[in-house]
Amino acid sequence: MSREGVTPQSEDFSAWYNELVVQAQLVDRGPVRGTMVIRPYGFRMWELLQADLDRRIKDAGHDNACFPMLIPESYLKREAEHVEGFSPELAVVTHAGGKDLEEPLVVRPTSETVIGEYMAKWIDSHRDLPLLLNQWANVVRWEMRPRMFLRTTEFLWQEGHTAHADEADAMRETMWALDAYATVARELAAMPVVAGEKTPGERFAGAVRTYTIEGMMRDGRALQAGTSHYLGTNFAKAFEIQYQDEAGELTLAHTTSWGMSTRMIGGVIMTHGDDKGLVLPPRLAPYQVVIVPIGRKEQGEQAAAEARRLGAAVRAMGIRVHVDDNRPQLSPGFKFNEWEMRGVPVRIELGKRDLEAGVATVVRRLEVGSGGVTNRAEGQGKEQIPLDKVPELIPGILAEFQSFLLARAEAFREERTAAVDSWDAFAGQVAEGWARALHCGRTECEDAIKADTAATPRVVPAGAPEETGACVKCGEPSAYGKRVIFGRSY
Amino acid sequence: MSREGVTPQSEDFSAWYNELVVQAQLVDRGPVRGTMVIRPYGFRMWELLQADLDRRIKDAGHDNACFPMLIPESYLKREAEHVEGFSPELAVVTHAGGKDLEEPLVVRPTSETVIGEYMAKWIDSHRDLPLLLNQWANVVRWEMRPRMFLRTTEFLWQEGHTAHADEADAMRETMWALDAYATVARELAAMPVVAGEKTPGERFAGAVRTYTIEGMMRDGRALQAGTSHYLGTNFAKAFEIQYQDEAGELTLAHTTSWGMSTRMIGGVIMTHGDDKGLVLPPRLAPYQVVIVPIGRKEQGEQAAAEARRLGAAVRAMGIRVHVDDNRPQLSPGFKFNEWEMRGVPVRIELGKRDLEAGVATVVRRLEVGSGGVTNRAEGQGKEQIPLDKVPELIPGILAEFQSFLLARAEAFREERTAAVDSWDAFAGQVAEGWARALHCGRTECEDAIKADTAATPRVVPAGAPEETGACVKCGEPSAYGKRVIFGRSY
Repeated sequence: MSREGVTPQSEDFSAWYNELVVQAQLVDRGPVRGTMVIRPYGFRMWELLQADLDRRIKDAGHDNACFPMLIPESYLKREAEHVEGFSPELAVVTHAGGKDLEEPLVVRPTSETVIGEYMAKWIDSHRDLPLLLNQWANVVRWEMRPRMFLRTTEFLWQEGHTAHADEADAMRETMWALDAYATVARELAAMPVVAGEKTPGERFAGAVRTYTIEGMMRDGRALQAGTSHYLGTNFAKAFEIQYQDEAGELTLAHTTSWGMSTRMIGGVIMTHGDDKGLVLPPRLAPYQVVIVPIGRKEQGEQAAAEARRLGAAVRAMGIRVHVDDNRPQLSPGFKFNEWEMRGVPVRIELGKRDLEAGVATVVRRLEVGSGGVTNRAEGQGKEQIPLDKVPELIPGILAEFQSFLLARAEAFREERTAAVDSWDAFAGQVAEGWARALHCGRTECEDAIKADTAATPRVVPAGAPEETGACVKCGEPSAYGKRVIFGRSY
Repeated sequence: MSREGVTPQSEDFSAWYNELVVQAQLVDRGPVRGTMVIRPYGFRMWELLQADLDRRIKDAGHDNACFPMLIPESYLKREAEHVEGFSPELAVVTHAGGKDLEEPLVVRPTSETVIGEYMAKWIDSHRDLPLLLNQWANVVRWEMRPRMFLRTTEFLWQEGHTAHADEADAMRETMWALDAYATVARELAAMPVVAGEKTPGERFAGAVRTYTIEGMMRDGRALQAGTSHYLGTNFAKAFEIQYQDEAGELTLAHTTSWGMSTRMIGGVIMTHGDDKGLVLPPRLAPYQVVIVPIGRKEQGEQAAAEARRLGAAVRAMGIRVHVDDNRPQLSPGFKFNEWEMRGVPVRIELGKRDLEAGVATVVRRLEVGSGGVTNRAEGQGKEQIPLDKVPELIPGILAEFQSFLLARAEAFREERTAAVDSWDAFAGQVAEGWARALHCGRTECEDAIKADTAATPRVVPAGAPEETGACVKCGEPSAYGKRVIFGRSY
């Protein structure tokens, strides 16, 4: 690791992020502009999220499959809005096997088109519905302003694609996926998200309705962390996805699609990180606990042996633990800083005095304040625990830390969110966080707000109370029947 | 499913395979020539193999990572043999984000080059070695003679890439991977393989030594089912992968790479399948047990309820079970044929007489003969088992079936393998199976053998007894110090 430390968040959030993702060994810049190499420490976070989400997807009756990455260009053109939305971002294979291709092949930016083609082939009767598919895949979208994890030319995601007999069943599916994403964001990433619908101007290209989960990052911006789309019969028409209903009539299917991506890793970093570096929620932390033995020579060897014993006992509790016992060239202080920067939830120090007293010094990455939301001064997160009690206490300490992060993020979001009823107050509010405002629903008005403040309507929150009145920008009557959340976004 | 059945193996093995993979719903032809859509039934097999192999890879200390799919063309050119080997198969992105690219980007056919670039960046000192990486990825190689699973334009695999301080450590790694592949092939796929080295003419482009596992398919041909390469310092030189050794000297690392792919699914099909269709080894079977309730109306409902109860009890034993209870439009006979064709190891029938007698009719996909290797006439695989005994007996029945398949495949291979010492006998032997023969080791002689018989040297078996003499083809003194296995291959 580099010894420089990172630019403080408060000074330049963007520099903090860009430096941290590299220094923490989550990622490296790829050889092609906008691409990334996900290093083991970052990839393990993705694997942990993937394992949980994959289980949810399967438990709800979906099957994984694998569709080709190279899609004939003509497929994309069959759905007019879809091709218009994705054309500027496509990477195109024009040459293969030593020859120019007759038809260019697009590297999938998403797979509605190719999967639509096969849904049409596999569905004959109402008995074949619903068809519930998912794939874990890489996709490519050429990005003009790339940023590691958040917007990269190639990224990893899962994409669910389902076909249903009617709108009601397809909408149930759309909302199931939205709910699964909100749950994963809250429970694994400790990222409190607002779930709800996108305004028409923010819809997925080809969708009838787009739903989103939005989290607030520590600079007050919003991150769209997962989306679920009801596609109506748009793709069914384009690809002839139809079935014989019980009366024998040929009927168009209603389809959905939904995706969550490696962008979530960026969300975790920006939801919890601080000036010292990453703060990882235990459920996504590659190492939930790191044990650092302290001392030189014989005493050091004794501490290392004890560290390995303790590590095995903690591991036996189902905890991901790393024993930092083979870098004698580095000082304990250097190691402490490094593991703090890399966001390990709990560090255990084992020094001479610890061993003499039969205790371990347990240090949480953040002090879990009594109010649940305070990050006290350094040192107050330290605790001495009898060695033989450590294994049984660690799961509770980690669970408490996980809850603390969620509560802290929720409190942060609430502090930075306000109902705004005047245009004067709007710009100030979206400069720091989110504005809950009434809006007329016109895309031109959204565009004007964006031009003035860089803020966009992030989500029409699903559970918000009914409210109507005048648009915060133009004064026209409000649409949606409730307040919309506006904010700057990633 | 189609009602046609498949061409018998004995009539046309190739037609049998091509029809079966589609009818069994493992795969569908992709929209672009040589690509495939892996359907849920086929993908589940891959997931089961992946989960096991991934655990082995991690347990041996490797970390998963994710490197970009698009590689600058110039990277491939840095290792001369490598670019020569892969050039004819490359797919090239020339256009992206609405513009022609300054440098064409190759869709990875394998990732030695891009990973080499980052190994060089991440390795400074001997303390950074070994560097043990793996990735699960899609790769693209433009195939002139594509065949589903065996040779497709895009396929899925894992590719291990490691760097070591010296040849001895790199060779230990190379052999570790080979052994892991042989174990996975035997234990999961019930595919007995011969492990050993490839002759120089069959080496990976850029490798110093290539090792392989080779299985025999039921038409007597060989399938290369996994390879492990010692790359020497070839890629280390090309990408400057070097480290300071303990004396402070800058030294080239020794690297390895190794891969196993979706080709293994094709191997399972061709190792065990018969004229009725697939025969799946339980450890890779999406459904290890299918329960088919029999009967109409009230009696049918009673059977279906009992099937669901039994299904839950069998599932509770950790068995993957499917209850075929919601296709009343299909006859039991149709369902039996379908599940046989799809290779389900054990079918349980629950009819009126079964329920009255308190038993289930348990049917193995193949009769497990007393000799372990006989496939007796239809009907003899049936057994009536008291309903309440079924859950506890199923794991043993499946384990026995798994062992039976391995033993049967091993016996088949032995029957079709013979030591051959004359060129007259050679052609006949490789038309039906494998020839164990002495060979001079000259690539020109390999080429002559291939031109005459379509057979190639598949593997120099690791454990074969020492033997020398005259080359079976040209009479020159033999190389390798042992017999080489020759066969036609996929």
